[in-house]
Parts: sequence; structure tokens; C-alpha cells
Amino acid sequence: MAAPLDSAPARPALVSIVDALPASTPFVGPEALERRFGRPLHVRLGANESLFGPSERVIEAMRQAALETHLYGDPEAFELRTALARHHGLTLDHVVLGSGIDELLGLFVRAYLAPGEIAVMSLGGYPTFAYQVAGHGGRIETVPYRDDRNDAEGLVEAARRVGARLLYLSNPDNPSGSHLTAASQLELIERLPPNCLLVLDEAYAEFAPADAIPEVSADDPRVVRLRTFSKAHGLAGMRVGYAFGAAETIRPLDRIRNQFGVGRMAQAAALAALADQDHVASVVAAVAQGRAEYAELARELGFAALPSATNFVAIDVATNACAKTLLASLLEREGVFIRMPGAAPLDRCIRVTVGRAEDRTVFAAAFRRVVACL
Amino acid sequence: MAAPLDSAPARPALVSIVDALPASTPFVGPEALERRFGRPLHVRLGANESLFGPSERVIEAMRQAALETHLYGDPEAFELRTALARHHGLTLDHVVLGSGIDELLGLFVRAYLAPGEIAVMSLGGYPTFAYQVAGHGGRIETVPYRDDRNDAEGLVEAARRVGARLLYLSNPDNPSGSHLTAASQLELIERLPPNCLLVLDEAYAEFAPADAIPEVSADDPRVVRLRTFSKAHGLAGMRVGYAFGAAETIRPLDRIRNQFGVGRMAQAAALAALADQDHVASVVAAVAQGRAEYAELARELGFAALPSATNFVAIDVATNACAKTLLASLLEREGVFIRMPGAAPLDRCIRVTVGRAEDRTVFAAAFRRVVACL
Repeated sequence: MAAPLDSAPARPALVSIVDALPASTPFVGPEALERRFGRPLHVRLGANESLFGPSERVIEAMRQAALETHLYGDPEAFELRTALARHHGLTLDHVVLGSGIDELLGLFVRAYLAPGEIAVMSLGGYPTFAYQVAGHGGRIETVPYRDDRNDAEGLVEAARRVGARLLYLSNPDNPSGSHLTAASQLELIERLPPNCLLVLDEAYAEFAPADAIPEVSADDPRVVRLRTFSKAHGLAGMRVGYAFGAAETIRPLDRIRNQFGVGRMAQAAALAALADQDHVASVVAAVAQGRAEYAELARELGFAALPSATNFVAIDVATNACAKTLLASLLEREGVFIRMPGAAPLDRCIRVTVGRAEDRTVFAAAFRRVVACL
Repeated sequence: MAAPLDSAPARPALVSIVDALPASTPFVGPEALERRFGRPLHVRLGANESLFGPSERVIEAMRQAALETHLYGDPEAFELRTALARHHGLTLDHVVLGSGIDELLGLFVRAYLAPGEIAVMSLGGYPTFAYQVAGHGGRIETVPYRDDRNDAEGLVEAARRVGARLLYLSNPDNPSGSHLTAASQLELIERLPPNCLLVLDEAYAEFAPADAIPEVSADDPRVVRLRTFSKAHGLAGMRVGYAFGAAETIRPLDRIRNQFGVGRMAQAAALAALADQDHVASVVAAVAQGRAEYAELARELGFAALPSATNFVAIDVATNACAKTLLASLLEREGVFIRMPGAAPLDRCIRVTVGRAEDRTVFAAAFRRVVACL
């Protein structure tokens, strides 16, 4: 590069919304922890990745697709959207793809929440939604969890009170693992204020009981549902999520999305993953067993596991101080990466991903050791 | 899904900026053309993909990475950014990653162009920049090409006249293939109005002569440079681009970017590609030969090829009508996908990607046939 500048020109001013944002983000990845400690983690159980991996057929599809990565992916993702539409009993127009649910959250905020307008979510809910709202100049109104679940009534009441334009609900919920019944979600939808879009984040839908997933008319313009290939399908590293809902609600995202953002291999991997429902079923079954093991482990150590409809378990360790100590001890002494909810009342819990049997064995041994040192 | 709704609730209102956008986008992918014609394309020479592909080492790296795709990528992309910083003689803080240059363009618009503010670009320049500006409520001021190149003086004059906050320059240029000298770019930078960021899109930098690439101080806060793994590295389907520039200018993107958006395999592929500069050099050499072949072919058919510092060639066929006819004939009769510039004076050209020798042979034969039918 050229020599340093003699006189320093000024940096162009940031847009005020971006200027007002905090410089740091809440996303410390496990790799950053490894760098901080100068050694690799023993096991990653903090990001709800599927340690069961994608299926062999998906891995083979990716290996084949490696020969075509010099080509852009289809910006309309026709094949994948067709397969997703068929899977959900929808038409192509009901489905839009994104680079993970995270990107889709940003697009729905851009499309439906003007600067200064208000979005409602649970206090301590998925931080990326709040990140996207703040990043676009919106405001967040939070509603505390009630009985360790999203408070459906409280959320919709808040939305009505503040005139919210977006209501974010994650169901099954991250970080509690709980779920609302389909009936209570349908009631929430019926009570949405006018001009309010329900953003229903169903990242963990595959792990949930049937009665957690509401039957919403495909053409109800008030609801969009978000799904991902990052969890049950084991493709967190490929970045594929999708939203489905009424065409009139979904299609405007085509005006603003990163048209070529879902790459060719990502589309190929997702297509293969969707076709391998046996793999998904086997992961879901293994996760159910793992959840039961974690519950038993918690009981053995004098704690309680919250019921979970996801691929992780929140273990109630009674106090925030205890949760913090356990999190730090597991990380620093055992090289075990987990996370914990960020706000009361759930911040008395640690959140542990359900890994494979061998991962669970590692966690159980480490957890017993750090609890013994409390 | 549930039964249709009895009474139709209203769709929540779109944010006014998004509501005002056109429903269609200018991005018709080759797959859409294949669906329209009901048959596969013979050869894709329209998107400036590298038909030379990534190197064998990159393909092997992706095949290895397929075993880790259940894990998110490092949101800080520490290894890749470290390698990029070393490659360019910078520090880690000078580099930010994105899901291709397209996403980074959107992030720079979000960070530096408030709704109603003005960005300057060449008339008929890269449409995705205009798409991102419009998508965030900005306005575009265009400056016509002069002598089939970006008009450096005209662009900076326009920026000064309208008080532009962003000036977009693609160098080497798409769609003309031309380049500005380093000296003229440095002059443009010195004449930037206060508070104006130069967004220098160098997607085709690897193909350019040395004097096309200016030496700008790494800490000059008025300039950001965009690069990609989609062109010379042959990884369009993996979605990895990056920007480098002064930390104070670059780092605010960390407040708004999709933190986990560059996936694990994409990072692994890019890292392997950056390490294989021999492959890049061989692609660049092959492309130079292909450009010469296209120039000779054009001459043989009575046309002129514009000089190119990229992996494509704009062939001047004299009139817009002729360009349109050739484009349509190549597509419909020959299954050859090319593109053409969207505005005068360059819309008298067709734009053809330099493929491998066998691709060029297919193009040459098809081009001769359609020209013969003119």
C-alpha cells in the first residue's frame, strides 16, 4: 500500500441510525473463545448446531456440487423453492429463501418496520431479531417470559398497546426450549392489531410435537413463518433459511433481497437435505433421547431441566450467579462451550445443545466435575 | 395448511421505501432462461463466471469442509481475514467479509447513504449498486460513459455538484471492460467532495494491468475497495466477497452485517483459493489469450472488440438494434447465454465472458452463424 497520508481527511459521516448503534455485537463465536484461550474447544454445545451432521446423501450432494461452484446459484432458486412448496403443501409464490433465518429477519424488518416504529418480542428472546430491529432504526418493546414460556397474551397485548408493526415469536422457543400450543398461537394471530405482522420463527420446528405447529392459512397475510436448514438438517455452515406465507406478504422481499445470496452449493445441499426426511427423523429421535438424558443428569445433580421441544435443553440451576459460574467453568476448565439466556427469569439457566451420545458423555462428565466444585 | 380464510385480513403495510420499489428486478438468471425455453443452455457466457473453475486444491478443500457443514462459520472469519490482510499488506481491522460484493454494496449504502441522499455512478454501470441504493431509499445521479470508459472527471464533478455521499466506480469496469489508470483514480480521490465515500468495485482486479490498480493509503477513510472470490478464483457459487479500507470506515459494518452470513465452507473455500495464486495466474493468462481471440473474431466479422482488463469482452456491433438481435439469436437459436450493457453508448455492444478454449470455440461458431443471418 501507499505511504501514510500527510494530512488526514475525515471519514464520511455514518447514517445516523448506524452511527447510534453499539460498536460491539452480542455474537461471540466459539472460534473467538478458542483464540482467547489459545486451545481448541473440547465440544461445541452452545450454538444448537446439529452434531449429528447432515446425511451422507447431503455430503455427497455437496461433493458433487463442488464441481459447479464457479457458477452462481439460480437467483430464483426454482428447484429448491418448488421442493419446499411441495413439502409444505404450498405454491412457489409462498416461499422466499435467505442466507439463514438471520438474513430473513433483517429483510422483514426492512420491509415492514420503518425507523422509529415498534417491534414486540420476549425479553431475552433471540438477540438477532433485536439486532436487526436496532440496525434499521426500529424500537423494541419486550415482554417478560411467563412460566418460562413466551407469554402469548402478554405479547399480543403489548403489540396492541404500542401499535407494533412486527411481533416476533420463536416457537418452539430459543432459549427456553418451551413451546406454545397451536391453539394459543391461533388466538394470538386473531388478536393481532391491524397492520402488525407476526414473524413466527420456527427454526426448531422439526423437533417439536405436532400440536406446537399451528395450521395457518397459507394466504393469511398477517403471518410469516421462518424455517432453516441449520438445525435438524445439519447445515448451519451452508446458510440456507426460508420464509413462507401469503404471496402478498412474502414477495415484496424480492425487491430488496440479495438476489444471488443463496449460493449454488447451498441450494444443492438444502435440496438433498429436504429429500432425506429419514435422516431428519433419525436426528429428531436421537435428540429426544438426548433431552431425556440431560433431564436425568440435571435431576441427579439437584437441578431441573426445562421441558424442551428443540435440540437443546435449558437447565435451571436456580440463580444467575450459579449459571454464570457453571458457564465459565465449563468453558475454561473443561473446554465445553455452552450458552445461557441473557435475561431474567431465564438467566438462572444454562442452555446446552443435545449432541451425539459421545458429546453428551463428554458434557455429563464435565458438568458433574464443575458442579462438584461449586 | 388450514382452510382458506373466510374474511380476508389486510396485509400489513410495507415501509414506504420498499412499497415504492418496482416489483421486478433486473436479474434474470440463466436458469430462468432455461426454464423459459424448456432446454438447457449450451454455454453460459453472460455472468462473467470463471468457466476455468476453482483449482483442484479448492475443490478438495470444499470436499473436506463438507464434513463440517453442520457447524456455523466463524462470524469473525479470523483465519480468512488474516490471510487477506497478509495478502494485501494490511491488518485484520482493514478487512470485512460479505456474501459477495453484492451484499457489501448494500451494507455500505446502509451505513453511508441516508434515504433521500445521492449516490453517483456511471449510466449503465453495475445495476446491483443502483438496486441497493434504491432499496434503501437513496437517489442515483448518473454520468454517461465517455469514450467507452468511466468518466472520472465527470463522476467527481457530479459528486461535487449534487453533494453525493457515495461515488461508485467499478474498475476495471463492468460492463465496458475498460480501466482507468491509477493516476486518474488518485486524482478523483483527491477531488472527492467532503463526506463522500468512494466505493471502488475491483471485482475484476486480478485480470487488470498493474497500472489500473491505485496505491491508496490503507488508512484513507474516503475509499473502500471491494474484491470477490466469484471471478478469477472461480467461486461465484460460494458467495464470498470482501472490502478493505480504513478501519474507521470499514468496521462500522460489523454493527449491521449478517454476522454468520459467510458460511463455514465458503470461508474454507476462499482460504484455499487465496493460497493458490498459481491457479489465479493461470486463469489470468488463459483469459488474456481468450480476449485476444475474441478481438480477432470480432475483427473477422467486421466488428470491434473494446479493450478489456476483465474476464469478458464488450464487442461493438454498431447499433443497439444489432446488439439486441444478436443477443436474442444467440440465446434462442444457439443456446448461448451472453448479456449486453443496459444504456447508451455501450448498448451498441454485446458482452461475452471469456470461457475456456472449448467454450470459446462454441461461442465463435455460434456467433459466426448468427452474424451470417443478420
